[in-house]
Amino acid sequence: MAERLVVIGGDAAGMAAAAEARRRKPYLEIVALERTGWVSYSACGIPYLVGGEVAGVDDLVARTAQEHREQRIDVRLHHEVKAIDLAARVLEVRDGQRRRTFQLDFDQLHIATGARPTRPDLPGISGESVKGVQTLDDATALLDHARTSRCRTVVVVGGGYIGLEMCEAFVRWGAEVTLVEGADQLMGTLDPDMAARLRDPIRGLGVDVRLGAQVAAFEPGRVLMADGASLPADLVVLGLGVTPNSELAAAAGVATGARGAIAVDRRQRTDADGVFAAGDCCTSPHLVSGRQVHIALGTVANKQGRVAGTNLGGGYATFPGVVGSAITKVCSLEVARTGLNEREATAAGFEWSAATIETTTRAGYLPDAEPMTVKLLGERGTRRLLGGQIIGGNAAGKRIDTLAVALHARMRVDDIIDLDLAYAPPFSSVWDPVAVAARALSRQLEEP
Amino acid sequence: MAERLVVIGGDAAGMAAAAEARRRKPYLEIVALERTGWVSYSACGIPYLVGGEVAGVDDLVARTAQEHREQRIDVRLHHEVKAIDLAARVLEVRDGQRRRTFQLDFDQLHIATGARPTRPDLPGISGESVKGVQTLDDATALLDHARTSRCRTVVVVGGGYIGLEMCEAFVRWGAEVTLVEGADQLMGTLDPDMAARLRDPIRGLGVDVRLGAQVAAFEPGRVLMADGASLPADLVVLGLGVTPNSELAAAAGVATGARGAIAVDRRQRTDADGVFAAGDCCTSPHLVSGRQVHIALGTVANKQGRVAGTNLGGGYATFPGVVGSAITKVCSLEVARTGLNEREATAAGFEWSAATIETTTRAGYLPDAEPMTVKLLGERGTRRLLGGQIIGGNAAGKRIDTLAVALHARMRVDDIIDLDLAYAPPFSSVWDPVAVAARALSRQLEEP
Repeated sequence: MAERLVVIGGDAAGMAAAAEARRRKPYLEIVALERTGWVSYSACGIPYLVGGEVAGVDDLVARTAQEHREQRIDVRLHHEVKAIDLAARVLEVRDGQRRRTFQLDFDQLHIATGARPTRPDLPGISGESVKGVQTLDDATALLDHARTSRCRTVVVVGGGYIGLEMCEAFVRWGAEVTLVEGADQLMGTLDPDMAARLRDPIRGLGVDVRLGAQVAAFEPGRVLMADGASLPADLVVLGLGVTPNSELAAAAGVATGARGAIAVDRRQRTDADGVFAAGDCCTSPHLVSGRQVHIALGTVANKQGRVAGTNLGGGYATFPGVVGSAITKVCSLEVARTGLNEREATAAGFEWSAATIETTTRAGYLPDAEPMTVKLLGERGTRRLLGGQIIGGNAAGKRIDTLAVALHARMRVDDIIDLDLAYAPPFSSVWDPVAVAARALSRQLEEP
Repeated sequence: MAERLVVIGGDAAGMAAAAEARRRKPYLEIVALERTGWVSYSACGIPYLVGGEVAGVDDLVARTAQEHREQRIDVRLHHEVKAIDLAARVLEVRDGQRRRTFQLDFDQLHIATGARPTRPDLPGISGESVKGVQTLDDATALLDHARTSRCRTVVVVGGGYIGLEMCEAFVRWGAEVTLVEGADQLMGTLDPDMAARLRDPIRGLGVDVRLGAQVAAFEPGRVLMADGASLPADLVVLGLGVTPNSELAAAAGVATGARGAIAVDRRQRTDADGVFAAGDCCTSPHLVSGRQVHIALGTVANKQGRVAGTNLGGGYATFPGVVGSAITKVCSLEVARTGLNEREATAAGFEWSAATIETTTRAGYLPDAEPMTVKLLGERGTRRLLGGQIIGGNAAGKRIDTLAVALHARMRVDDIIDLDLAYAPPFSSVWDPVAVAARALSRQLEEP
């Protein structure tokens, strides 16, 4: 009998691994079990689907189940794994359409079960109108509910990336949107001084932004707040981050780590023999803090999946780690970050200085030059770059990658000043914004 | 008597040094001699002045002579240095306004004489209507001539950055523009296959693009071509690159290097004691080829000037070198490059492979996703990244910086695949374009 690889979870981390393993081992039997009706889709595209910029759910599918099957990957939709028996090397699988449960043997196992929207333990949290946005099934459920309920009022809970993107999406949809955030700032991955720059633009969209606001309960048609306020809500969207789907693996005895995510080594191997994991369900090494972290992002899922697939296919590959890069666009503002913010740097034990500079996206003398703010953090003593945050107009955001690569290369702040970055007036002032910020931080690091 | 630093040349490389030396040595006497009537300006902004996007010449001045004087830098405009006597440590200076020549002692000397547009040795090259674009004096002369002659027809000679930018500028101005390029491709710093993508967009602007076209002579009102053609030309703009203004230093016995530019060490010191140089007049180390090169760019001039000024002011700084980054915007196309192209890589002795990929500036499922092409070169054997070229729509160009930093860090092509670059659908597909290109090149490098 052929060697069998079973992949649990059919989005990026699962199918990237399956595809890579297939490429390397033509005779490997590969079965991919997916709980929902969709594989290989862009969950990050859901806000644009809701906002109407993307016409249909199918547009978010990078590769269909049928296309995978043509590569001899046996994709089975609506199949949920209920239990893993590592000793017997067998899975208990529930076929949701045929409503039967069966057993499936495996030689190697790849766990890519993803993550689910975090649901706070509050009255009414399981209500019909309280929706998370993680899978395409979630997206279709949310859209169905929104269309059915006409959805005049939306409360978004949580002011992170997904929360802000969903606010803009439902403004486009035509709803009255309230954003409820428990902390005193939006976008907790930014420092408060940077996050404060987002409040007015979001309010400018017409969103009622409520910071430091605690939800007390969800009721049909409204959200009750701890301060007694009642917010009308045909729909509630949860944007409180995600929880790794690691329970299945943990129940089988696979070790977990940061935030309960499945612990993996550089080759995406769990501590169980022949069992790999990748994506939102597992941990990643953070190259700046040196710690294992749980970062649920499509980019990481794809990269880890490819690494797992290479190893599952008999090759050798390692995932070097993350530096914490993320980006979003809210209204016409681009918001990006990488590395550690102030809170994270302190938590990781660094003594740091920070510098923030204001500049423009093009040479100041050109029309359409838009404001742009760059903040950098560096370690005192070593002068190592620790992180960066950028908020600005058109084409400001992806400049964060310059800093991301510098973090990968463990550059000092001073190294960044002299980087040979491309310049012409339509793109920046003659000193690149990133270099200007590095100069400011370099001076800060010299202060006693 | 106080120690005196004399700076020859008042644009970026000169005044950045003067300002930095002032900051570090409050009691240093600093005299800056500038041949033209302008200091500290953006020559890179001249095309936008001609095209009408910048209202006036003054807008291109970052800091006026008066502002420098307030920092006790004795700026003297219209002062041209005619000779340097290194043994006697004295300069012969021509004051163009008072029409007198005088001698000026120096303790330390900083040479920042820049470069001048290359003028081919052809009949009529010194004609009134044949203009280069390097200084603000050049720009005002060009604008004066264009306004006087009404300038209905313009011939741009040379299809590099300046040539293309001037084509677009004169199209905006309302002229009929012909672009004459001796080589078979535009933009000689790109590989032919990438440069070919520019031809149609430039023609789409309404520019008559003539490749492989040799000028025979310049006459008032027209340009005669080697093939017998006659091109109407109220104005001829030279875009054939620049020649370093190193003759003054060379005549004094200062050593020169690549393309006749002044040779400098890591601290911007020439081989003459107490004599520094920076900017378009001097050489730079290329971090990929390992060779000394002459790259005339405002970014390099500013950085080298700052390094020279730090050392002149008693500090210690070194200029690490360039990786060959450059960018421009032509019509709505962004064009960028870094590192070595195919020709340069071969000339530097590398055995290389290349890969080119097509992608989009945003996730393909979003509206307004524009085409984007990324080409990478890598060394065989070591798998080291050697260079990259990007052509694409909005916000495509500055992604070249990701590759520039990777070159500074001497990354391998494989390292680039797993870089934690920021992702959201408005900015790219889930695999960053740079990573997709690295994956393609990684496979190429495995081929025998």
